Amino acid sequence: MDRLEKQIQFILETDKIKRITRQTYIADGSRKENDAEHSWHLALMAFLLSEYANEQVDVLRVIQMVIIHDMVEIDAGDTYAYDEAGNATKRERETKAADRIFGLLPEDQGRWMRELWEEFEAAETKEAKFALALDKVQPILLNDKTDGAAWREHQVEQAQILKRNATTPEGSAALWEYCRRLVEKNVEKGNIRR
Amino acid sequence: MDRLEKQIQFILETDKIKRITRQTYIADGSRKENDAEHSWHLALMAFLLSEYANEQVDVLRVIQMVIIHDMVEIDAGDTYAYDEAGNATKRERETKAADRIFGLLPEDQGRWMRELWEEFEAAETKEAKFALALDKVQPILLNDKTDGAAWREHQVEQAQILKRNATTPEGSAALWEYCRRLVEKNVEKGNIRR
Repeated sequence: MDRLEKQIQFILETDKIKRITRQTYIADGSRKENDAEHSWHLALMAFLLSEYANEQVDVLRVIQMVIIHDMVEIDAGDTYAYDEAGNATKRERETKAADRIFGLLPEDQGRWMRELWEEFEAAETKEAKFALALDKVQPILLNDKTDGAAWREHQVEQAQILKRNATTPEGSAALWEYCRRLVEKNVEKGNIRR
Repeated sequence: MDRLEKQIQFILETDKIKRITRQTYIADGSRKENDAEHSWHLALMAFLLSEYANEQVDVLRVIQMVIIHDMVEIDAGDTYAYDEAGNATKRERETKAADRIFGLLPEDQGRWMRELWEEFEAAETKEAKFALALDKVQPILLNDKTDGAAWREHQVEQAQILKRNATTPEGSAALWEYCRRLVEKNVEKGNIRR
């Protein structure tokens, strides 16, 4: 029972990502989304859009990555994409969080999940590249749907978005092409600063 | 582009499950959870706890089921487990919802997702039985964690929980055994009515 008990305690501990708010608004613009909702959305996209990955991917592995990719924010908090100071210390804060959180699991599963998260962060495998592309594409879709709510709120510039998405085409050229057009449209509308 | 456009519109339409509130409270008891958060939690449990499925399951298929299982509630609403009048009309409302919502997808993916949802609802395959068990186990874990918040609010009786979980052991005898003890503990504490 000790193994199952550890797994259940991990499942209850990670419930906390339901209270970690992101900067992106949900599609009706009524409020910002949280990490659990965001992760659910990426999991759905992982299998619905896998045909657009540049290389054929192991869809199960991509889903597992996106389901767990934000758990470190339970301790480290959400760092907004365009928060430079926050991003400077992000890796250190998140590594410490990974030690504690994945350490709650039985040793084999904790090690497996740590490696999965490191693979996502390293962005080198085709699964990680596709998962990271989805993680960038989803807020662009929601921002466009909400007439640029978060972009306007943070006065985001086109160059920041393009820099942040420099590697998105490595995961999916097709999805980036779709998003590039949305970004251009929102620059035209004044939702994104030139 | 027409195919991708349909997929994106489906992804944006199903964002609405982030606003469908369930009766279960999140682990810190601060508020009730929504369908997107619940579905994320089940997807995590699907791969962390697959070793407890009675039969070896296709984990990807289980995850896909739980990611989409509540989408029909966008039109049909959430029907509380112990709402008898609501449950009498649930199937009809949800079937109509499935027609519209899965019909937004490209034809091949819409048909595939409809079949996946029907498989979940029919509870006959080993993947559906395990997915359904997780769907019943997760609120028991959260109810126990919140000292029976939703059980107390709705004055739920032990017999109702046992009836609702009659088939949970068919998906996972081990997880049901864990939950059965939690239910007994909460009967003793007065959180569940005898």
